[in-house]
Amino acid sequence: MTRLTIRIDFDNGQQVGHGKIRLLENIATHGSISRAAKAMNMSYRRAWLLADEINSMFQSPVLETQHGGSGGGHARLTSFGHALVGHYRTIEAQTLTAFQRQLAEIEQAVKP
Amino acid sequence: MTRLTIRIDFDNGQQVGHGKIRLLENIATHGSISRAAKAMNMSYRRAWLLADEINSMFQSPVLETQHGGSGGGHARLTSFGHALVGHYRTIEAQTLTAFQRQLAEIEQAVKP
Repeated sequence: MTRLTIRIDFDNGQQVGHGKIRLLENIATHGSISRAAKAMNMSYRRAWLLADEINSMFQSPVLETQHGGSGGGHARLTSFGHALVGHYRTIEAQTLTAFQRQLAEIEQAVKP
Repeated sequence: MTRLTIRIDFDNGQQVGHGKIRLLENIATHGSISRAAKAMNMSYRRAWLLADEINSMFQSPVLETQHGGSGGGHARLTSFGHALVGHYRTIEAQTLTAFQRQLAEIEQAVKP
């Protein structure tokens, strides 16, 4: 099925899109940046940099991290982080529903 | 102001997003791929490849091109090309309107 991806571009040049949201969702699911990175086939370094970028983008933190310990570091979303992911996915899903007709028209025209 | 960009991903892995739509709009405005490329600060080669990619993506052509001649080549959108750009911009604009409240909430949280 045709998918719709949205990207939010802020005035300061920063943006939130599919990649960052998917990383946050994976951190929420797996409880750490390293396990999220593994689940996404992403290098730990890239996941860490991306997580750090999202986390310093807002006035409130998006993630809470806890370093080291016997089982390695842990990370989880703050309530603001959950709200951010929720808003993004709501906009995406409702847009897909609202424009089904237009998207179907475009989709029909695509070569198989 | 916060902007919203959409990308449509088709089942066959191809996609239509901001870059391709903006190129089509510039071709419509300027009447050739080379003038569109210049207006977008894009190399002619990149614009041509992108235009060719969009044009071979659908069962109907998106662009009509006419080579050479004294004033160089010309290009214009087909009616399907105009419909494609129209649908894309409609979805984008209406999404921005529909989710003003959620976007404002996210925007307020962004560091200045």
